[in-house]
Amino acid sequence: MNQKKLFFTPGPLTTSETVKRSMLRDLGSRDPEFLSLISEVRRRLLTLAYDDGSYEAVLMQGSGTFAVESVVSSVIPGNGKLLVAINGAYGHRMAKIAAVLGISCQTLVFDEATPVLVERVQKALTEDPAITHVGIIHCETSTGMLNPVSEVGHLVREQGRTLIVDAMSSFGGMPIDIVRDKIDFLVSSANKCIQGVPGFALVLARRDRLDRAEGHARSVSLDLISQWEGFERDGQFRFTPPTHALLAFRQALVELEDEGGVAGRAARYAANRQALMEGMTALGFDTYLPRQYQSPFITSFRFPAHGCFKFPDFYQRLSDLGFVIYPGKVSNADCFRIGTIGHIFPPDIKALVAAIRRVLGEMQIDSASAVA
Amino acid sequence: MNQKKLFFTPGPLTTSETVKRSMLRDLGSRDPEFLSLISEVRRRLLTLAYDDGSYEAVLMQGSGTFAVESVVSSVIPGNGKLLVAINGAYGHRMAKIAAVLGISCQTLVFDEATPVLVERVQKALTEDPAITHVGIIHCETSTGMLNPVSEVGHLVREQGRTLIVDAMSSFGGMPIDIVRDKIDFLVSSANKCIQGVPGFALVLARRDRLDRAEGHARSVSLDLISQWEGFERDGQFRFTPPTHALLAFRQALVELEDEGGVAGRAARYAANRQALMEGMTALGFDTYLPRQYQSPFITSFRFPAHGCFKFPDFYQRLSDLGFVIYPGKVSNADCFRIGTIGHIFPPDIKALVAAIRRVLGEMQIDSASAVA
Repeated sequence: MNQKKLFFTPGPLTTSETVKRSMLRDLGSRDPEFLSLISEVRRRLLTLAYDDGSYEAVLMQGSGTFAVESVVSSVIPGNGKLLVAINGAYGHRMAKIAAVLGISCQTLVFDEATPVLVERVQKALTEDPAITHVGIIHCETSTGMLNPVSEVGHLVREQGRTLIVDAMSSFGGMPIDIVRDKIDFLVSSANKCIQGVPGFALVLARRDRLDRAEGHARSVSLDLISQWEGFERDGQFRFTPPTHALLAFRQALVELEDEGGVAGRAARYAANRQALMEGMTALGFDTYLPRQYQSPFITSFRFPAHGCFKFPDFYQRLSDLGFVIYPGKVSNADCFRIGTIGHIFPPDIKALVAAIRRVLGEMQIDSASAVA
Repeated sequence: MNQKKLFFTPGPLTTSETVKRSMLRDLGSRDPEFLSLISEVRRRLLTLAYDDGSYEAVLMQGSGTFAVESVVSSVIPGNGKLLVAINGAYGHRMAKIAAVLGISCQTLVFDEATPVLVERVQKALTEDPAITHVGIIHCETSTGMLNPVSEVGHLVREQGRTLIVDAMSSFGGMPIDIVRDKIDFLVSSANKCIQGVPGFALVLARRDRLDRAEGHARSVSLDLISQWEGFERDGQFRFTPPTHALLAFRQALVELEDEGGVAGRAARYAANRQALMEGMTALGFDTYLPRQYQSPFITSFRFPAHGCFKFPDFYQRLSDLGFVIYPGKVSNADCFRIGTIGHIFPPDIKALVAAIRRVLGEMQIDSASAVA
């Protein structure tokens, strides 16, 4: 077992030793010390999002998808209708959640290489007054695309609808002003840009929207409103929380602050991404997305056109050298992905690029260009 | 922060240092090494339950309740009906899950101090052929009651219905032969008798029952069948798993085997429970349940009748001494609970009893008897 592998993934990712070491103790899930930890974590999350006092932080066990489903299933009334703006797998997933739950849902599907167009959202809202909620993915992890959440937020608020933002791969890694961007529900996860370990996810929600959603829940476990009420009533999770993951997350939040907050972290991720682009461009790799749509969190690269390129082989050789990358998730192109988030720094990126250069050599690939 | 506290709780509980230390590394959720860990864990779980090759192990993110809901929401068809035998909070919870999901549900409610009566279940099944599924709690964690799962299992199979057993607090801590006891679905959690950390739960299910349940799911996140198909297809969780909790769990399974398997662990828990009963009886405490219904995992004690007894004070004083106990969950009596599971041994129980003696003295309580 190689303990030294670095992860260039969208999460679970490389965490700091101190984050991991904070898990070396047990805590009672109803013990006052743990309740004060929950309270501190909820407070810190709201601060990260520039809360003005009108938002609440609700933690939810499970992966980020569990938290997305908890929002969709808890806040949309029986006669409500969800519009999902889609340009990748995570947009499709939100629409699928609505479909399985029997919630009326309209989709607005864009090409995976195109950002969500605000005017198309506007048109859909104007044409269909039955739409009560709008869902959008901030950073489509499947491609790395950044969508125009702020513009959509202003539009949705103006139109009197409610906005649900999946900010899984972006929250904590770039400034998101939840008030200014008029986001009603923001969902993210412990093991992304905040650099905790997986085990739970988080929802930041306008308090008046939570109040209004009482009674819509379609699940006991994923009931967002009851979960919030539990925190407010006695400070506890209703059901067993991942205590060790919470300990790790508190430490991760402290380390985020020590790095200069979201601004400091965003600067490091930008430096990571720049090092990656310089290195990969020099090797001849092409990105799937045009540069202007690209988030600094994860980048999709097209497979080299070279006949000797086999992704499983490429992946395994890099892994053997201690570098774990990520498979692609674009439906219409062969890609792999490289994440630039987590406890990794520009020298790590340079080491990764050097390893990629070496592996290409081993695979007899002279140029990584996707154009044959 | 006192790192040395011991937990006498139903979980999260005291885990071994080696279980916690196994979390000191990151793993990619789609990396071959992690997939082989998932596969090993699933295999070991089936062995623990004496699988004859006709069962499958499915892991589910979240707490035990998430896994109970995943079974109820995924395997009962739209025209199905669930009968839940209830003698405590967890039985009520299973019925509530069915109610929220809109699943037809009949409850058979017993006094919390009385085990489920098999003849009442038989009568209900005979009277209502619409009942397709029966739910029962093996060890009702709210009281410590052990219910007659094997007898109910034989009856339910004989009657051609499907049995769902919540074995949260018992699986791994006493022998459960899933084949002999005719259990179709068994649900338990990582942080109970197997002594892992919280973060996910597990379902052991008859393969033919899983096959038959295709298409009933009422949730994306909690879709048990898709989760199983995901493991079978590519060995992966569909959505981000708690990688560190899985590492801890694998180590916990190894340590369970090293202790002599379930038999060895059951012997230690029995010794823990005996030490607890001797000590608490000597202090004058009364148990809520008659001895013959009592599981070895957790015991409910009645509050002393003494006017000076205040539970929050009692709890805090014990916690300050390094002993974390658990509040009660019986609806008709004032109780607290003491768990005898986790990485704790008879000397720890004796130390706890000594601390309770000291705290009672500090609180000026001469007798802990519940009879004034």
